[in-house]
Amino acid sequence: MIRVKIVLAGFGNVGKGFLQVLQEKKQFCRSRYNLDIEVHSIFRRGSALLSPRPLNIKEILEKYSSSFSFEENHLWKPGLELKDALDSIEPGVLVACTPSSIRDGEPGLSYIHCALDKGWHVVTADKGPLVVDFRCLKKKAERNHLALKFSGATAAALPTMDVALYSLAGAGISQVEGILNGTTNYILTRMKEGIDYGQSLEEARSMGIAEPDPSFDVEGWDTASKILIIANAALNTDFTLNDVKVEGITRIPPRLLSRAREKGKALKLLGRIYKKEGEFKLEVALTIVDGSRPLFGVDGTNKGITFFTDTMGAVTVTGGKSDPRGAGASLLKDIINIYREF
Amino acid sequence: MIRVKIVLAGFGNVGKGFLQVLQEKKQFCRSRYNLDIEVHSIFRRGSALLSPRPLNIKEILEKYSSSFSFEENHLWKPGLELKDALDSIEPGVLVACTPSSIRDGEPGLSYIHCALDKGWHVVTADKGPLVVDFRCLKKKAERNHLALKFSGATAAALPTMDVALYSLAGAGISQVEGILNGTTNYILTRMKEGIDYGQSLEEARSMGIAEPDPSFDVEGWDTASKILIIANAALNTDFTLNDVKVEGITRIPPRLLSRAREKGKALKLLGRIYKKEGEFKLEVALTIVDGSRPLFGVDGTNKGITFFTDTMGAVTVTGGKSDPRGAGASLLKDIINIYREF
Repeated sequence: MIRVKIVLAGFGNVGKGFLQVLQEKKQFCRSRYNLDIEVHSIFRRGSALLSPRPLNIKEILEKYSSSFSFEENHLWKPGLELKDALDSIEPGVLVACTPSSIRDGEPGLSYIHCALDKGWHVVTADKGPLVVDFRCLKKKAERNHLALKFSGATAAALPTMDVALYSLAGAGISQVEGILNGTTNYILTRMKEGIDYGQSLEEARSMGIAEPDPSFDVEGWDTASKILIIANAALNTDFTLNDVKVEGITRIPPRLLSRAREKGKALKLLGRIYKKEGEFKLEVALTIVDGSRPLFGVDGTNKGITFFTDTMGAVTVTGGKSDPRGAGASLLKDIINIYREF
Repeated sequence: MIRVKIVLAGFGNVGKGFLQVLQEKKQFCRSRYNLDIEVHSIFRRGSALLSPRPLNIKEILEKYSSSFSFEENHLWKPGLELKDALDSIEPGVLVACTPSSIRDGEPGLSYIHCALDKGWHVVTADKGPLVVDFRCLKKKAERNHLALKFSGATAAALPTMDVALYSLAGAGISQVEGILNGTTNYILTRMKEGIDYGQSLEEARSMGIAEPDPSFDVEGWDTASKILIIANAALNTDFTLNDVKVEGITRIPPRLLSRAREKGKALKLLGRIYKKEGEFKLEVALTIVDGSRPLFGVDGTNKGITFFTDTMGAVTVTGGKSDPRGAGASLLKDIINIYREF
């Protein structure tokens, strides 16, 4: 049995989703993968739990299922620093679920650098650090023979990175197109059905799909962040967010919308990687997709991605639960895959 | 640079497809994966090439592009045995591309056992050995800390096993359905368009999609073999081919065919794993699929598979080239993934 020690940074929906899935799958991880996964520390804003013995996840989840129970327990120590937690435990995996800025990558970027410096593997659902500094983080991980995995940051339960890096290993990827954001895809699906933008967005909000401030999604930046990370990781490029031509769904030209409403057509916000004059280009663009394309039927909050390759043809993957549970499961998946023999 | 020595068993279309892709990707494997992949021995029916120095693949492919050039070269030694080749080279990967029987798994089964006994990893496109003896082969590989990979035997460039074992690691798979055979899917696609069975089969034959004896495909046994392997590998079951309820496409009931021809419907031969009274069941069955299901649009020689899970929802993967090049690329992919660090 391999013992895997976890430090979790971020105790929001995704962090809790991860703990929930981990709790549920604890025995399965032991019996199927020979892994005993133990959480020793959890960081949230301003305070942290840290213990030489594995934390009781079940108890923690019960106590903190509501965000209103924030300050009730004196076990959460204020002022603790992540680096000290990492120093006090035998290295395992840092699970990063803080929501970091896509401008400077913080606070996650410092956490991840620190973990990699101290011999910890990293599994992250946090896009910011990867958007800002992927190349450098990847190099550091490789140099230290550590894993840096980020399924959770690149459409989570939809296995974008697994397909790109593992299933298509050895193939040359020439083009990628993906529906990578559930909120915008939901709104576009409703708009095809005749509902206007404002009402579709309201629906998405009331269903808890859209953030209170939806601009990161609807202006295309979430999709841009994901397609950027996918490009830099799968194609060994070194693009920045400035290199992505980004379009959102807030100002759809009426002509495009009426074409989208034709039978056998759909309007999708695609994150795309393509070649122009031999160079890779990145864009997020409203695109009319017809019934012959595999992403045509990817509706509602569903996501999907197509990789076009030289030796394996086009491979498309769709689906994967778009919620904290799906995101949590994708973090657990990455942990399991770090320790698999083959 | 890691040097990987290859012994190839099987010099038919898939074996040659593998060598072709390997030749093309030699430099890419060095620069991207730090792997120097060298073929030291090739076995075909009745004779073999074996060399302490890497074989010149380019030359071999040029000489043997046609199957008529079988006996022209005295370098092919008759009577050589695989075990002797494996003994004479530092262990690497046996690539198994012989077409073995699904009744006794031979000749591939003996080859694979021998390789695993002698410390060689195995990558196989050969279904027979896996159909007959998966559990035992898998145990032997694990006991000897060797890889046993078989993307090439389970829909090749369509990454069925990668998704099941890697992308869904930690998730509980409750149901699987797949279009796993290109020939039958091509015929069913044409039949939906109004062409009758005989003519559709003839077309498939003339396009080189169908085998001269197509019964293995059209009677459902190819699909049955694949779904059996997927079940035993992904769900840790121990089914045999006798446990699969198998239906083919040769006697489609007229009522089913007319429903299949309705708009928004399609007739598919699905390999399925499902639960009945808490137990997994396997079947290959003609199924009407409607437009809401992700496999609906998988037409012609395309393939696809959906995994239904507890934590990650439903994940579907479609596409992947159905030809010797795609199969060869899937063998190379498996080799690369054996040696990856994470």
